[in-house]
Amino acid sequence: MRRICLIATGGTIACVQTERGLAPKLAARDLLSYIGGDTGGIDCIDLFSMDSSNIQPEEWQQIASCIDGIRPKYDAIVLTHGTDTMAYTSSMLSFMLRGIDIPVIITGAQYPIVREDSDGRKNLRDAVTAARMIGGGVYICFGGIIISGCRAVKTRTTSLDAFESINTPPVCTVEGDEVCYVNAAASLSHYSFSPKIDPRVALIKLIPGTSPEILDSLAACGMRGVVVEAFGLGGVHSFRRDHTESLIRLMEKGITVILASQCLYEASTPDIYEVSRPLKDAGIIPAYDMTTEAAVTKLMWVLGQTSDRAKIREMMLTNLCGELRA
Amino acid sequence: MRRICLIATGGTIACVQTERGLAPKLAARDLLSYIGGDTGGIDCIDLFSMDSSNIQPEEWQQIASCIDGIRPKYDAIVLTHGTDTMAYTSSMLSFMLRGIDIPVIITGAQYPIVREDSDGRKNLRDAVTAARMIGGGVYICFGGIIISGCRAVKTRTTSLDAFESINTPPVCTVEGDEVCYVNAAASLSHYSFSPKIDPRVALIKLIPGTSPEILDSLAACGMRGVVVEAFGLGGVHSFRRDHTESLIRLMEKGITVILASQCLYEASTPDIYEVSRPLKDAGIIPAYDMTTEAAVTKLMWVLGQTSDRAKIREMMLTNLCGELRA
Repeated sequence: MRRICLIATGGTIACVQTERGLAPKLAARDLLSYIGGDTGGIDCIDLFSMDSSNIQPEEWQQIASCIDGIRPKYDAIVLTHGTDTMAYTSSMLSFMLRGIDIPVIITGAQYPIVREDSDGRKNLRDAVTAARMIGGGVYICFGGIIISGCRAVKTRTTSLDAFESINTPPVCTVEGDEVCYVNAAASLSHYSFSPKIDPRVALIKLIPGTSPEILDSLAACGMRGVVVEAFGLGGVHSFRRDHTESLIRLMEKGITVILASQCLYEASTPDIYEVSRPLKDAGIIPAYDMTTEAAVTKLMWVLGQTSDRAKIREMMLTNLCGELRA
Repeated sequence: MRRICLIATGGTIACVQTERGLAPKLAARDLLSYIGGDTGGIDCIDLFSMDSSNIQPEEWQQIASCIDGIRPKYDAIVLTHGTDTMAYTSSMLSFMLRGIDIPVIITGAQYPIVREDSDGRKNLRDAVTAARMIGGGVYICFGGIIISGCRAVKTRTTSLDAFESINTPPVCTVEGDEVCYVNAAASLSHYSFSPKIDPRVALIKLIPGTSPEILDSLAACGMRGVVVEAFGLGGVHSFRRDHTESLIRLMEKGITVILASQCLYEASTPDIYEVSRPLKDAGIIPAYDMTTEAAVTKLMWVLGQTSDRAKIREMMLTNLCGELRA
């Protein structure tokens, strides 16, 4: 029998109604009381109790340190977390806990577990089922599917199938007490705990007419990295409001710029269209098929590991945990 | 027989290979030569020839003015356009040409029409078919479906079904020489040509750790409106890096702030969670089920119509052309 620890961090699953709206109040042991079955052998940790729209780099480090600390004592971890930033957390933990040899399964709910019709009951039950069966790695378990942590995106605000596995199939599905593999897990590297990150990263999603001043101001805001959600395969304005020039100026100041797409599905690349060439020539780093969540958290993580520009580039272009098709 | 005008603006559909990558070179008449059938009666206008990642508010006004000018002479307009910003253009034209009594059908391609396997041949043929049959309004015709202009999002960088109709089904599908209605068109208002906009609008997609300084800097960048792609239903950080305070400061400076979701599907709302209440109390305007493309272009358009805060709020919360579930 695997030794399992449930870590609770708040989120909708733990919410109860208050005068000012829903707020997370339930502890880990309370959550387990709603899923039925024998959960007496599962240990519980109440790490904090937050709405996940407040989860920030400091909470990621706290969660990762907690998991690294208890790892020798357990065979699997279940982590309850709000859905709003869950895909960012799962992506970041994939880097911070790279190669982890036990499963870290993140779950939550669109509706509070105290509600009889809450998806949280099945999601938590599925996560515990998966914790008893699947191999090492960081995952999201939600709506009956298990997604690699660095491939998840929250695509729906209210439906129960809130998360999608982007640019790769889910790892498995949970059917009753069984898991059915859909997609072989990525081969694992050796476990290394690397919680050091640099959160000075900005995300810019372009619109037609985006003022280059906004891009220019990122240097004054102290950013060390910028992920640009550009148009289509990676297009930006190159005249009148010249994004190309602004992004090149950022790179000349030593800021790492990643070129991603605002399209949810499929890869970006600056290799195809004439308008993208100057950025490529100036050393912009394509996100290719990484999700925005993975690109942003990977950049924070890489900037925490090194300041060497060639090394940053090499790491961003290397598949570290399944986030990038190698 | 309907009188049809094809307006060409460039885009991948018109691209040919150059030394520096693909660049749009073909004229409207050239494009028609690839679709077969009798196209001799279709008039052609070559408005400009651009990669659509360079399409900006000035081009929107040029396109809208061209369409308004020729409207009395034609029963339908087909507009070829690059895919990268097509959904922004279709959204903006929906507002600028609100209630237009003839169909304006925007199409393009993922692959240049000169390629024998290009989707541009079928897309343009479908657009001409629809131009002969459907009612007034602004639409995107792509991958065999026709989407309301203010509901389209480009979700795929390379596949032929690049556009999705978000939070409402497509208007119709094109099957050979016929169109099959899926979703009744929104009831039309009277035609009014209103090309005046204020492009001083920024889009901010939040990530965990977004520096409030970036939000604060938008005032100094001269923005009059900000659309925030928040977490989930509309969550933002409310401590340590306090987005709530920064957004309230922007609103106190007279900047209109729209709260949208970074989830592609389903509506946002600040009504449910405790963390969103202070923003609601300070007058933030929810995007509800509008796409980001519609929210951004609508805000530019509304700010071009009025400076009165109550009026801005009222217009943003009113369904003008099917972009918002009333």
